[in-house]
Amino acid sequence: MDLKNKGEFGFIDLIKEHFKAPEGMLGIGDDCAVMPCGEGELIYSTDMLMEGVHFLRDAASPEDIGWKSLAVNLSDIAAMGGVPQATFLSIALPKDAQGEWAERFIEGYAGLSHMFNVPLLGGDTTSSLRDVAINVGVLGRVPSGGGLRRSRAVAGQGIYVTGNLGDSAGGLKAILNGWENTPEVLSLIRAHHRPLPRISEGRKLAGSGMVGAMMDISDGIASDLRHILKASGVGAEVYLDKIPVSECLKTVCSRHGLQAEVLAVSGGEDYELLFTAPQGIEDRLDFPVYQIGKITSQPGLRWLMDAQEVDMDITGYRHF
Amino acid sequence: MDLKNKGEFGFIDLIKEHFKAPEGMLGIGDDCAVMPCGEGELIYSTDMLMEGVHFLRDAASPEDIGWKSLAVNLSDIAAMGGVPQATFLSIALPKDAQGEWAERFIEGYAGLSHMFNVPLLGGDTTSSLRDVAINVGVLGRVPSGGGLRRSRAVAGQGIYVTGNLGDSAGGLKAILNGWENTPEVLSLIRAHHRPLPRISEGRKLAGSGMVGAMMDISDGIASDLRHILKASGVGAEVYLDKIPVSECLKTVCSRHGLQAEVLAVSGGEDYELLFTAPQGIEDRLDFPVYQIGKITSQPGLRWLMDAQEVDMDITGYRHF
Repeated sequence: MDLKNKGEFGFIDLIKEHFKAPEGMLGIGDDCAVMPCGEGELIYSTDMLMEGVHFLRDAASPEDIGWKSLAVNLSDIAAMGGVPQATFLSIALPKDAQGEWAERFIEGYAGLSHMFNVPLLGGDTTSSLRDVAINVGVLGRVPSGGGLRRSRAVAGQGIYVTGNLGDSAGGLKAILNGWENTPEVLSLIRAHHRPLPRISEGRKLAGSGMVGAMMDISDGIASDLRHILKASGVGAEVYLDKIPVSECLKTVCSRHGLQAEVLAVSGGEDYELLFTAPQGIEDRLDFPVYQIGKITSQPGLRWLMDAQEVDMDITGYRHF
Repeated sequence: MDLKNKGEFGFIDLIKEHFKAPEGMLGIGDDCAVMPCGEGELIYSTDMLMEGVHFLRDAASPEDIGWKSLAVNLSDIAAMGGVPQATFLSIALPKDAQGEWAERFIEGYAGLSHMFNVPLLGGDTTSSLRDVAINVGVLGRVPSGGGLRRSRAVAGQGIYVTGNLGDSAGGLKAILNGWENTPEVLSLIRAHHRPLPRISEGRKLAGSGMVGAMMDISDGIASDLRHILKASGVGAEVYLDKIPVSECLKTVCSRHGLQAEVLAVSGGEDYELLFTAPQGIEDRLDFPVYQIGKITSQPGLRWLMDAQEVDMDITGYRHF
């Protein structure tokens, strides 16, 4: 039985209320979910989130955790230029999370599902001794051969991102350090808890035929860009002064003595798209993208600030 | 990145050694796994297993846990008459399971994967504070409209199973009670730890065009058969004396004062197939199946022993 109720707490009925299988699909209630094959290629991504490692029940609302556990997977679909078709949720709940916590978790998960019109078609609900464990799988679709890979960056292409970087990392710092909830801090915390996967932008970029490599930013570009460079066998230079950073992040960083660029580069969990394309692509798209660097044939990753190379590490950057 | 290494313990390289993506598919190393759509319909099943709830690390070998966590999902694919196409493994490991335990787990998982020639194409590896958490997802395929559902049992059809019931439940009792490891007890324990999903039988049954409803036996027929009856709006009578039971189970039950039929009916985790079909189908198949009852238009589930109705509960049965 898909989405089994090994524990008995009426949770599946609640999930069924939120999700009805679309015409031509079979959802909760049999051994497997059933979907049409359709055209093109299938893509699949899955992420596991553990209490105490990826989230704390007393530091984020259940709705936020539900939202984000789906968002990080939809973002992987976006990173290939795909359309999400169905999601699958496995969740193990200790006794003290089996009532209101679980219901509110589903509210958040369903909110994002409905925003992108993607049905939950199955999963597994069970009990846990101590920690909440969550696994989300998303099945999507791309045109045959149309999925954007990490391995297709070419020297001379520009490096682009689809939005501000660093807000999520700033929000996490605010939570961990208990910073005063100014409007700017609350905006960063929201960016951390409620990332918006760039599904529409990913599809348009894949459809443009202009993109080389693409991925989503989960660990920060200092780490993520290296995956593209390695997979493509190229190098890059990144212009720290060109990285888009929100006014909120600048305000909060200046108040707390931090460099916004460092959070933008190393923080992660922004879930913006990072891609390479011919320079000038920004004039041929109907949504904003920001050039932050250039792919080079020379291997390695170089950081520049105001056209001067700088030494970058997780604590900051300095001129050589 | 699919099959991310959030923890750093070389585990992904080991998984890559075991699994190479087949021609035309993309496995570990990008945002998503990629597969051809192909013909027919997609089917998907997923199960979450938590340490302390579904398994104990000191009561089963890591290889056994790896095998079984995949087997229970392949069995759901078998229950629809499907062919497994790809599997996805998410695993959260506490520090003391990140070395040898994890490697041996993968050995067991890979052993069953290779037996059914199904590739692992992605997943997620991460750390856990305390308990091992495992989630397996399997994507499969059935001919369009050919997936066997639970809702198609018809009055007059026979009720069949594909093999002995109760061995797994006997094995679990032996483990929990520390029974002496006689050859019979070891055989039951092996049935509990290493179930064999009935993929080939499921495909043949779906292809026969004769089957009404089908599912796999995970909770025991006393529970599982009720799902078919409810989904199909019918009743059933089950002949306790016709349920196939192994000689090992009979021997062990008689030694420990148990009724083998009760374990066979209520124990679960046999992962045999339970299906309805015209009586006489056993003569038209090239593998053994056993008729254990009959679908009735009268609702409810009646138990018979030697043609006499008996009262059945989890502790035993007795004549009225």
